[in-house]
Amino acid sequence: MEVLVPFSTESPKSRLEPVLSERERRDFARAMAADVVEAIEAAGHHPHILSTGQIDVDVPVTVDERPLTDAVNARLSAHVDARGSDGGPEIAVVMADLAIATPSVLERLFETPGDVVIAPGRGGGTNAFVSRHPGFRVDYHGTSYLDHREIAATVGADVCVVDSFRLATDVDEPADLVEVLTHGDGRARTYLTDVGFTLQTTDGRVSASRPE
Amino acid sequence: MEVLVPFSTESPKSRLEPVLSERERRDFARAMAADVVEAIEAAGHHPHILSTGQIDVDVPVTVDERPLTDAVNARLSAHVDARGSDGGPEIAVVMADLAIATPSVLERLFETPGDVVIAPGRGGGTNAFVSRHPGFRVDYHGTSYLDHREIAATVGADVCVVDSFRLATDVDEPADLVEVLTHGDGRARTYLTDVGFTLQTTDGRVSASRPE
Repeated sequence: MEVLVPFSTESPKSRLEPVLSERERRDFARAMAADVVEAIEAAGHHPHILSTGQIDVDVPVTVDERPLTDAVNARLSAHVDARGSDGGPEIAVVMADLAIATPSVLERLFETPGDVVIAPGRGGGTNAFVSRHPGFRVDYHGTSYLDHREIAATVGADVCVVDSFRLATDVDEPADLVEVLTHGDGRARTYLTDVGFTLQTTDGRVSASRPE
Repeated sequence: MEVLVPFSTESPKSRLEPVLSERERRDFARAMAADVVEAIEAAGHHPHILSTGQIDVDVPVTVDERPLTDAVNARLSAHVDARGSDGGPEIAVVMADLAIATPSVLERLFETPGDVVIAPGRGGGTNAFVSRHPGFRVDYHGTSYLDHREIAATVGADVCVVDSFRLATDVDEPADLVEVLTHGDGRARTYLTDVGFTLQTTDGRVSASRPE
């Protein structure tokens, strides 16, 4: 299956600004994306990066400068057109910052039956989905998980939900680095430890920090 | 299986103070615990509340004023003593604030084989586990997920991990209320909507809020 991986080359991961420099945020975002691409390949599928700008990687890349929703919908439409509007094979979208996704949890997503299979993200988001319905389109603004369920219902697509902590964990904020250090085992985790991050416990709560 | 549900009657859910009054936090904590107890029963198991103070519920309650780690370890030891140190039947611990846990995800936890089966929580925590090993004990301070893996290894218990967003979601902070409103369907969600909370989207990010 083709698996789109949206990636932003412009000031990625801006909410990590309190703990990572601009250069570090760029490198960390690329490390996470490389982990995601590798996990998709290890799960036996075909990653295709949907990037806002040029990026040098070994997998197919489509550059589309438009906002996420428009760029993904253009690819979903192109997929339906290429296959015929009777639906045709499935397609998936997996966010590039799912730094603790593993091949086995991605397999669980890809193998779950349903016209639309959604892996919710924290905060009402949609971190990954599979579409097997020609009419399904996305709207990533706001509570996209609820909106995607509604869009699926509108086009008559049934929805299945994959309950996965690893797929629900997109890495946006400093607190999310704790998940990478605790549960990660790829480039993203190595990047954080290389630049000095460790887990710290203060008053029973855990944070990821490095010496000033 | 006996499923311990630790519950604090003293100033519960203090990190929700910015959005809920003391009385509301108490009522909301009880609504979440009632949902968890009901989900455990619906999954075919026997909830047993381990409370820091008296609480009026229809399931067995043990009052233990000690800190969480000591109180849980006392019950684990008592369980082993009652059954004989050859191991005996399994026992589980499920946190009382897993407001979006469902019977089916709890079944997934309870039915996963392994001497120790852990459902990690966000921030390095341990939100639920099953122990089938007489030597396993807990340490909830800090990165308990990693510590519990180490404790299991020390006593020769193999560990399985259950990857569940619903079990990883303990409700501690205002941002967590978004998950209850988005994915919940029990008393906790009803409580929040009854006191006026709705999902709001600002700059593409979702929060749970109510009129001032």
